Amino acid sequence: MAVLKVHGAVLSTASMRVFACLYEKDLDFQFVPVDMKAGQHKSETFLSLNPFGQIPAVEVGDQKLFESRAITQYIAEEYADKGTQLTCPGKPLAPLFVWKEVEAHQFDPVASKLIWELVYKPMYGTTTDPAVVEENEAKLGKVLDIYEARLAQSKYLACDCFTLADMHHLPNLHYLMGTPVKKLFDSRPHVSAWAANISSRPAWSKVVAMQKQ
Amino acid sequence: MAVLKVHGAVLSTASMRVFACLYEKDLDFQFVPVDMKAGQHKSETFLSLNPFGQIPAVEVGDQKLFESRAITQYIAEEYADKGTQLTCPGKPLAPLFVWKEVEAHQFDPVASKLIWELVYKPMYGTTTDPAVVEENEAKLGKVLDIYEARLAQSKYLACDCFTLADMHHLPNLHYLMGTPVKKLFDSRPHVSAWAANISSRPAWSKVVAMQKQ
Repeated sequence: MAVLKVHGAVLSTASMRVFACLYEKDLDFQFVPVDMKAGQHKSETFLSLNPFGQIPAVEVGDQKLFESRAITQYIAEEYADKGTQLTCPGKPLAPLFVWKEVEAHQFDPVASKLIWELVYKPMYGTTTDPAVVEENEAKLGKVLDIYEARLAQSKYLACDCFTLADMHHLPNLHYLMGTPVKKLFDSRPHVSAWAANISSRPAWSKVVAMQKQ
Repeated sequence: MAVLKVHGAVLSTASMRVFACLYEKDLDFQFVPVDMKAGQHKSETFLSLNPFGQIPAVEVGDQKLFESRAITQYIAEEYADKGTQLTCPGKPLAPLFVWKEVEAHQFDPVASKLIWELVYKPMYGTTTDPAVVEENEAKLGKVLDIYEARLAQSKYLACDCFTLADMHHLPNLHYLMGTPVKKLFDSRPHVSAWAANISSRPAWSKVVAMQKQ
């Protein structure tokens, strides 16, 4: 089997999404750290992997992939017979498609803004904007109300098993749980149980462990 | 075959994405107009179709779908043997996954901001912000430089045939071509040829014709 190389960074949510997928699939991979502070993601070498100059980028054989959710879908389909299934085989197609898009277009934009304000800005020594936090907490609350209703009916977002739709949330969840935004999850019992359940997966622990090395 | 009902609006880019897919697949459907001005998309009836209160929403048999790109993927897979293929059968999976995500995460956010400023704001009688236009024109130019390089190598974004990755661009392209942003496409020969080619598809003409009824 061709070596799978992941160019990324252990603190980047998009890279973490791909690491989670690789560990769920029990696949060996080579991690190539990209030094963002040194601008390595804008170097000619990196741009030949991803012309948009964003991490992660994946090489496997002569294929080059970028965009974290494209990479996870590729891994899930190309290595369907390895590790965790991550799709709902034998189930209707629609819920997995719908809930993957919900993560990307409803949850991620709001979560990313909160993480920027509450995690990355303090990390870089700049000042959090409380108005942006307040606006996006209100938006996230509305999104999580819909998740609460969904998760009251279904153990996982797409069906009764863990899929890409759940997994894609893990990096943002991880950071949000270390901020006051955690209260929005804690106050919704089904959301809170789902978040605790998917965050306790052994594959996810390995991603978190990469940050501590 | 179960009747496919699309709840949407003829001027909405997300609805147009779904109509384009249905016409490409040569599928009959029932269009149920949603009166956004009257707030119908926030009514209890509509929220039972899409709890996020956004158009379009699709009903087919007892399945309910929302998020335009989830709906098109469902249609492409569920009706794989009808009309235009829209995927790259027999080709490597990665490019289609990658370029669908590029549309959603690189092209659409910038294109949507420009359309908001240059199409919808004038339509609603509010004032365009020239600074937002300038910032997003610069961003779109950079995205289109990457498209130009890609389309110099490949007739379509994902492979040598028209796929969902191309089709998802059509609604935003349609509106941008009626604004001064058109110059960003015209100045890039491969992008310009690609945009003209995909916009001239008979299925797309049917979507545009819906706006004139």
